Amino acid sequence: MTERDLTIGVIGGLGPEAAVDFFAKLVKATPARTDQEHLRILIDNNPKVPNRNDAIAGKGPSPAPALAEAARGLARAGADFIVMACNTAHAFEREIRSACPVPFVSMIEETADEVARRFGGAGAIGVIAAAGCVDAGLYQAALKARGLRCLVPEGDLRARFMDLVYRIKAGDTGAAVAEGMRQVGEALIAQGAEAIVAGCTEVPLVLAPNALSRPLLDATDLLARRAVAYARHELLLPTQTRPAA
Amino acid sequence: MTERDLTIGVIGGLGPEAAVDFFAKLVKATPARTDQEHLRILIDNNPKVPNRNDAIAGKGPSPAPALAEAARGLARAGADFIVMACNTAHAFEREIRSACPVPFVSMIEETADEVARRFGGAGAIGVIAAAGCVDAGLYQAALKARGLRCLVPEGDLRARFMDLVYRIKAGDTGAAVAEGMRQVGEALIAQGAEAIVAGCTEVPLVLAPNALSRPLLDATDLLARRAVAYARHELLLPTQTRPAA
Repeated sequence: MTERDLTIGVIGGLGPEAAVDFFAKLVKATPARTDQEHLRILIDNNPKVPNRNDAIAGKGPSPAPALAEAARGLARAGADFIVMACNTAHAFEREIRSACPVPFVSMIEETADEVARRFGGAGAIGVIAAAGCVDAGLYQAALKARGLRCLVPEGDLRARFMDLVYRIKAGDTGAAVAEGMRQVGEALIAQGAEAIVAGCTEVPLVLAPNALSRPLLDATDLLARRAVAYARHELLLPTQTRPAA
Repeated sequence: MTERDLTIGVIGGLGPEAAVDFFAKLVKATPARTDQEHLRILIDNNPKVPNRNDAIAGKGPSPAPALAEAARGLARAGADFIVMACNTAHAFEREIRSACPVPFVSMIEETADEVARRFGGAGAIGVIAAAGCVDAGLYQAALKARGLRCLVPEGDLRARFMDLVYRIKAGDTGAAVAEGMRQVGEALIAQGAEAIVAGCTEVPLVLAPNALSRPLLDATDLLARRAVAYARHELLLPTQTRPAA
């Protein structure tokens, strides 16, 4: 194709290690033999954005204005579409979309599409998601719309998972954290999940694709592959407006 | 300190794997227990910029306009200072500085400062640098100004190194490439180098810090640490104007 590659705008820093992971996966997903065959990627890694989980729990300021401003800035700098390397922050997707003059590609929707393609007939899908992501019902709604039941960490499992998330954000990606994360995934499998979605960008920082007894879908990797496909015109960008949740 | 952290602007994509490596090293170099303690980092990963080595050899268009535009765009988006994750591209530093309203922190100067601090009395320092970086005399001048002799890959060694660089850019970071890179470093040591600078951002993608029989300084890691220190006001930013080379 002669059409120029699109420029990808990335809202990152939520947290920064997850943004590094996403950037690495974007580069790896790009078929290229030279620098020039790679894609232009603009990243606003802004970890100063207020805590998403606290905001959704009503315990802190909203990150929406900062996320919307990041999206606007990326578009202004030349991004043709925007993605965000954080599942939970998609709770503020509406504010980002309405602020942003270019399409926003949702990690939640792209992941739910892939889950439906691969596990359409399954009874239940486990999603390892953070408290705010669960409370906002992001994956529950997206999977329900595709006829799938969604299992998420609840009660004690949720508390244990959030503890792991904050340990990873503090820089601990050691064996104990990885084992704890494996147990969270296996607990959802024990509840009946036929596949697991790593629906929090901290999860793949400690959990390898083959770490669980059922298939593990990494939303970070999946969004990276889809973003590369959009940028290379292998897929048509989703329209800016989405059906209401 | 109560002064707000500075925002780092990164010209990347030269190549993209090197930009990922630099971003990872920036995040790792930042002392932080929460997302919010991390630094805001703006990255323009633009691999479409013309090949630097070809331009310096007079065989291709100059990347200077694209690099200058990247610097301007990063400053416009809020970067307080600019760094570039590519040694060779510093041959176009003058054009970048003159286009850019915020300070540019040079990878070459920061690395040469650290080399002088650690190996001030040494006879010769080996710098594994790409053809364009060598032909532009970047490290030779910076080390000479600090009373140090600089050994660079020449003749057959230079050809072998450039072959490795382009294999890494094509995605090959396997054992054969790593061993080839080790041999380039050892060849400079055999010529009398008392320490080696990984003066090309592809080098640390295959060569671990302890891979050689003499100390190996990674210019990518060093620039990352210094950039974090500048952003956190632990060091005072260098003034925009530099002495002529």
